[in-house]
Amino acid sequence: MSDKYWVGFDLGGTKMLATVFDSEFKPCGRERKKTKGHAGSETGVVRISKTIRDALADAEIDVGQVAGIGVGFAGPLDLEKGVLFEAPNLGWTDVPLKDLLENDFACPVVVANDVDAGVFGEYKFGAARGARCAIGIFPGTGIGGGCVYNGTILSGKNRSCMEIGHIEVNPAGPRCGCGQIGCLEAVASRLAVAAAAAQAVYRGQAPALMKIAGSDLSNIRSGALAQAIEEGDSVIETFLRTAARHVGVAIATVVHLLAPDIVVLGGGLVEALPALYVETATAAANERVLPSFVDTFQVKAAELGDDATVTGAAAWANAVVGTA
Amino acid sequence: MSDKYWVGFDLGGTKMLATVFDSEFKPCGRERKKTKGHAGSETGVVRISKTIRDALADAEIDVGQVAGIGVGFAGPLDLEKGVLFEAPNLGWTDVPLKDLLENDFACPVVVANDVDAGVFGEYKFGAARGARCAIGIFPGTGIGGGCVYNGTILSGKNRSCMEIGHIEVNPAGPRCGCGQIGCLEAVASRLAVAAAAAQAVYRGQAPALMKIAGSDLSNIRSGALAQAIEEGDSVIETFLRTAARHVGVAIATVVHLLAPDIVVLGGGLVEALPALYVETATAAANERVLPSFVDTFQVKAAELGDDATVTGAAAWANAVVGTA
Repeated sequence: MSDKYWVGFDLGGTKMLATVFDSEFKPCGRERKKTKGHAGSETGVVRISKTIRDALADAEIDVGQVAGIGVGFAGPLDLEKGVLFEAPNLGWTDVPLKDLLENDFACPVVVANDVDAGVFGEYKFGAARGARCAIGIFPGTGIGGGCVYNGTILSGKNRSCMEIGHIEVNPAGPRCGCGQIGCLEAVASRLAVAAAAAQAVYRGQAPALMKIAGSDLSNIRSGALAQAIEEGDSVIETFLRTAARHVGVAIATVVHLLAPDIVVLGGGLVEALPALYVETATAAANERVLPSFVDTFQVKAAELGDDATVTGAAAWANAVVGTA
Repeated sequence: MSDKYWVGFDLGGTKMLATVFDSEFKPCGRERKKTKGHAGSETGVVRISKTIRDALADAEIDVGQVAGIGVGFAGPLDLEKGVLFEAPNLGWTDVPLKDLLENDFACPVVVANDVDAGVFGEYKFGAARGARCAIGIFPGTGIGGGCVYNGTILSGKNRSCMEIGHIEVNPAGPRCGCGQIGCLEAVASRLAVAAAAAQAVYRGQAPALMKIAGSDLSNIRSGALAQAIEEGDSVIETFLRTAARHVGVAIATVVHLLAPDIVVLGGGLVEALPALYVETATAAANERVLPSFVDTFQVKAAELGDDATVTGAAAWANAVVGTA
């Protein structure tokens, strides 16, 4: 089997990443490019192929040695047919990516939601190794979620599920970008924390963050928030803990419904402040569950970082296609 | 296969029911007894065996023709070992029911949560036939839930999950019997509706219910509530719709997480007012989900009534054991 390789591909709105894995899933080649979606989907798919070929060249692997390609995509798609319905940041619609890549590379191609792929990666090689039921929650601009149950990604009918960012955590809460009231995303995404932080900067309550990033939301990234907390902006720490507590309440909901053994938290904010975030969310979740569920689950920070999606997509292709 | 039979057993706090099914899952014998748990678990297990033997006699079936027994139990249990941890209404603890019945009947025995068994019954033979992902929600004294995904009951590690009655639907809501604030159960169980109804009776706002049941909670059963609504107690209808709307919000949460194609609502209150309950819950769920999930799921009233658990328990035993 040592001559068979798997390719993982992460197709995001701004960048794409291809990584080649050997049969033991050690990475042996990679390529990263900007997505440049505005040039249209045809040019985009050519660019995807080129990125994969460059990664294969980096690994000194021949196309014929690829056993399968797994793609993680950040948008709505038909899981079975591998058609990307819509890529809002790219302006693409109805791209039959699975068929196009299968024709190009003459190997099986599997397309999954990028967060699901990331959770599968953490399940195979990261923080959720060996979990019977692993839930992943990734607070970023929105809040993505995924679930691996008995070795398989839970999904809807031809669509991904675990839209944890849109479950209601506070019916009296603020309006979410989706139009609904009280979604988890509206109170606990990195964007929600950054928006609260920007107000605090404007009001003069966060002097450290003022120096680091100012009050422009696009500058208030996870690293800036973490640094401000370290430099003593207690109000920013309060915002972060509030967000993590809301995530904890959502974890309690998922624990009641699916009884996971491991919950993995990822994304920039968690990576910047893993201990603070994980401890706060764990405490809030344990406070909110039925007594019989207390401490039945572990909350852990993700381990694979930006490589979770490529790793998981390749491993998922391997799981679906088999080791042939 | 026509000489092989399956037994379904529903072990509740007040009554037990055994039903014998032929290889095509037609019921061909049954026996119902009061549980009489206060006499202790040893006597209780003898009583369970006797009930099964009486059902076999009713079906004119020999013990040797039983391919497997499925038990649905209303309490915490070890799914793998078939040990009942605790039966609060019965006062039993740590009863190795699977082992005891396997020794007695010399056939495989499978023990499941009673609600899970009921949802599996609806999935095999009732309102959720053929569903890829079926969720069951049964508002009664509490609110039970279950999920059948790709033909299997979702569960935790050796325990049942889908504790939908205890997910938070309103952090500003009333305290639940479990001690937490804002559980679905606290605002939408039959008991919660009955408690609101009793207050309305006391205040003179529900004249029909006053005549039918008075203000004693133990008399305000589902049938009484349905009759009061029919006779014009609009305040009782309001309470019921409020409860159904809360169930709808919980459905929205489950739709976001698991993208079911069918949600089955059961229990006395739903059976008494199926159209009102299902329509209200469906509307509330569709109002709360992301646009892409609207109308992707059907909400339906359960079809098997009190037979759901025995039917599902027998069918689950068949699914787990195989048709041997």
